[in-house]
Amino acid sequence: MRKGIDTLSLVDPSEIASICQLKYAYFRLLDLKRFTELGELLTEDATTAYQSGELRQSGRDAIVAFLQESLGDPDIITMHNGHHPEIELGDDDTATGRWYLEDRVIVPAHDFEIHGTALYEDRYTKVDGSWKISHTGYERIYEEHIRYSSGDVRSIRAGGQTTTF
Amino acid sequence: MRKGIDTLSLVDPSEIASICQLKYAYFRLLDLKRFTELGELLTEDATTAYQSGELRQSGRDAIVAFLQESLGDPDIITMHNGHHPEIELGDDDTATGRWYLEDRVIVPAHDFEIHGTALYEDRYTKVDGSWKISHTGYERIYEEHIRYSSGDVRSIRAGGQTTTF
Amino acid sequence: MRKGIDTLSLVDPSEIASICQLKYAYFRLLDLKRFTELGELLTEDATTAYQSGELRQSGRDAIVAFLQESLGDPDIITMHNGHHPEIELGDDDTATGRWYLEDRVIVPAHDFEIHGTALYEDRYTKVDGSWKISHTGYERIYEEHIRYSSGDVRSIRAGGQTTTF
Repeated sequence: MRKGIDTLSLVDPSEIASICQLKYAYFRLLDLKRFTELGELLTEDATTAYQSGELRQSGRDAIVAFLQESLGDPDIITMHNGHHPEIELGDDDTATGRWYLEDRVIVPAHDFEIHGTALYEDRYTKVDGSWKISHTGYERIYEEHIRYSSGDVRSIRAGGQTTTF
Repeated sequence: MRKGIDTLSLVDPSEIASICQLKYAYFRLLDLKRFTELGELLTEDATTAYQSGELRQSGRDAIVAFLQESLGDPDIITMHNGHHPEIELGDDDTATGRWYLEDRVIVPAHDFEIHGTALYEDRYTKVDGSWKISHTGYERIYEEHIRYSSGDVRSIRAGGQTTTF
Repeated sequence: MRKGIDTLSLVDPSEIASICQLKYAYFRLLDLKRFTELGELLTEDATTAYQSGELRQSGRDAIVAFLQESLGDPDIITMHNGHHPEIELGDDDTATGRWYLEDRVIVPAHDFEIHGTALYEDRYTKVDGSWKISHTGYERIYEEHIRYSSGDVRSIRAGGQTTTF
């Protein structure tokens, strides 16, 4: 059952671990609103396709500005957890990654919360020995809109269909 | 502190990583309702003991049919996240795995949600070079039944005791 | 892109995997209320700084006693999930670890729930060949206090500010 050294190095666990660290730092800095440091995890020409592609940015500066503008308000409280990393190493210092996101965006002042899940499809590139995110985007599985203080669900969207209450 | 190459290969991180990939694909295909592809992750004689053993199936076809029947309705929205993999490699291309599940099953049409956690105890077998799930099952830690639109908890069951509201 | 064997062993994935196993066992035993076994995962002189440092214990026995006293009641139901491990190996059989916690503490008898997230900063030491937790503590990102049966949020605290409803 044990693979030999040659086989082991074909899929280098430490490369995949490095890519996971990159994504974990991304989520940590996102929820701590440290967007400039987050930007250092992106390639300069990184692109995004957040929210099933509805929100797209191109370039590190544009992405950082978008995050600052959307989530920089200290009254917006967020949770972004990335589960189930499915990383595949490619050629030429590239890799792809799938992640299963669960996120909450809570805006107490508006008594509003978004809660949902999504599948990320990322691309990574190794630049000067360090892995960076060159593309990140996700497709929603479901998204709930909630009256925060009461927990009432106003709507849930999944599979292209919205149910309202 | 560093282990030498010989020791390193005794617990091969890339074997454990492969088993994690298997389980991550299982959860992804489950929540995307791609049950036939999910079946390819199981051995032909795989068995289950879902829901603290109350729900048992035997054989890939029976498992896929059960999942299709229980969760195939597009109006049922699910989240299955597996955390904390504790994988142990055994002899003869076998392995065992513990996982910490958090799951939600949302049925807007019935204004109903199940939300809970559980500990999985899985078994894996390597077939023709690929890891497959040969047994999967979980014991609940807690299970909540919720009136979905209002967030009211109708009941919570944990430790063999149910509290109703 | 592939690292050679020498480089691979510089950050030994199996050491990091062992530390993850340690933390996963900690969470599992915590939510199963098996506190004595949990104590075996700690060094004898382990310290804590739970709840943004408000709750501190020193020594394995004190920590186990604290957990038993706070969470030992079978009517208290907990979920502690640790995500995003950022483990760094140090010198002399030490390591540090960041984790992203999501936790729920549910007390049906008091119709009360705490739900929140936090960032752990842990330290680990290898004792007689086994990794142990020598320090664990976390800083809250947010903490919600909830009327459990109705899902009403009574308050949310984040960034040093509390919003009440």
